[in-house]
Amino acid sequence: MRVVIVGAGNVATSLAVALHEAHHTILQVYSRTSRSADMLAQRVGAPAVTDLHRLDPHADIYIISITDSALATLDYSAFPPQALVVHTAGSIPMDVIPLPRRGVLYPMQTFSRQRVISFADIPLFVEAATEDDTQLLFRLASTVSINNKVYRLSSADRLYLHLSAVFCSNFVNHCYAISEDILRQHGNLPFSVMLPLIDEVAAKVHSVSPHEAQTGPAIRHDEVVVSHHQALLADHPDLQQIYTILSDSIQKNS
Amino acid sequence: MRVVIVGAGNVATSLAVALHEAHHTILQVYSRTSRSADMLAQRVGAPAVTDLHRLDPHADIYIISITDSALATLDYSAFPPQALVVHTAGSIPMDVIPLPRRGVLYPMQTFSRQRVISFADIPLFVEAATEDDTQLLFRLASTVSINNKVYRLSSADRLYLHLSAVFCSNFVNHCYAISEDILRQHGNLPFSVMLPLIDEVAAKVHSVSPHEAQTGPAIRHDEVVVSHHQALLADHPDLQQIYTILSDSIQKNS
Repeated sequence: MRVVIVGAGNVATSLAVALHEAHHTILQVYSRTSRSADMLAQRVGAPAVTDLHRLDPHADIYIISITDSALATLDYSAFPPQALVVHTAGSIPMDVIPLPRRGVLYPMQTFSRQRVISFADIPLFVEAATEDDTQLLFRLASTVSINNKVYRLSSADRLYLHLSAVFCSNFVNHCYAISEDILRQHGNLPFSVMLPLIDEVAAKVHSVSPHEAQTGPAIRHDEVVVSHHQALLADHPDLQQIYTILSDSIQKNS
Repeated sequence: MRVVIVGAGNVATSLAVALHEAHHTILQVYSRTSRSADMLAQRVGAPAVTDLHRLDPHADIYIISITDSALATLDYSAFPPQALVVHTAGSIPMDVIPLPRRGVLYPMQTFSRQRVISFADIPLFVEAATEDDTQLLFRLASTVSINNKVYRLSSADRLYLHLSAVFCSNFVNHCYAISEDILRQHGNLPFSVMLPLIDEVAAKVHSVSPHEAQTGPAIRHDEVVVSHHQALLADHPDLQQIYTILSDSIQKNS
């Protein structure tokens, strides 16, 4: 397929490269700044453009991968009115795009400039205003998801998926960050001592439901250890509150 | 070394097997119930015993791996008074053992019956009442920690290490569990769709500090998405509170 990429951030870059490697033609890369547009355009052998009103009108699909707030204010009159135009955002409804052939292609992963992510194993969630376009998006997504992790999902359910992903990524990462802070302040241990534990906790839920996988003082109702931990956090009331609320929640849900 | 193992739970089993494989001699396995004692004893080619007062007196080290509460009430008069006796608990001080040659050998990992864990990569934290015994424990630990992840750590700092581990394992796993619940209730997606994200979040902190690795609506101060997520959790006030407190904490620590 002939694809125009609107945006040149982490998701746009990973997706454009994956499509390019799957032998789709990237017709054009748009970004507001010529530096980002050029960088990505070069990687996928496409021309770059910084004026949205100079989009190539001959693409089969226009993929918009920009920030959530920019999606709300984008000038959608720049797109051919009958073209298929999709965005890649987890938490924005499809209908933010005021065009008849609108859709969503949401790759659920945490992207960062430092790490190149293979699309082979990333779940992709697709939605479009018509059944034909849903099928087209599903086929396109399947060409980059080598392990066939493509799902149809409505905007309403995608919101919950995104919420669920915040727990599995942002909140999990924040627990790591708190752990790093505690270690730095006591015993002067490097955060790397936590990595085998972190890896095993992640590995375990590949084969066991997280509800069954739970261990530790809270699930054991070991109030001696729980109170002791709370006392250790006496100088950090915000962390103490997090400790208490998560421990209570573990006990309630067991 | 000649080792007596007191206990036959997950940690006792993993540790006894690792010591056996590292060519130490397991002299004896004690457990209150003959079934657990026999099961572990058989795996490491040792006799089993269910009477604590029939412990073999000729071991170089006695390793007690039982629950935290059982550690407090164990009859320590059963051990030879001049023997090196250590426990394996993260959150219990060394001094729970009322003997001159007391110590701790804490393997920091989440153990479960379903999964056999290799000790090669598990960090081990050692402490003893005397410098000679600390060195002896360090050497013993090094024989099962093939990747040399053995650290000296005081009882006081080990408490903070254990607290830190609760954040990286129990609280992380609870975030996974909440995520699974949300998915089950909306969109009917299997929890397995989260695994690539979970794996990448864990993999990322091998090379980037969790403070730098953070992404998502909270760290971006995207109040539109944050409020939207809070609204989605209106029927689950406990989860809404967890969402709010963790998002606030991410913003405060960025």
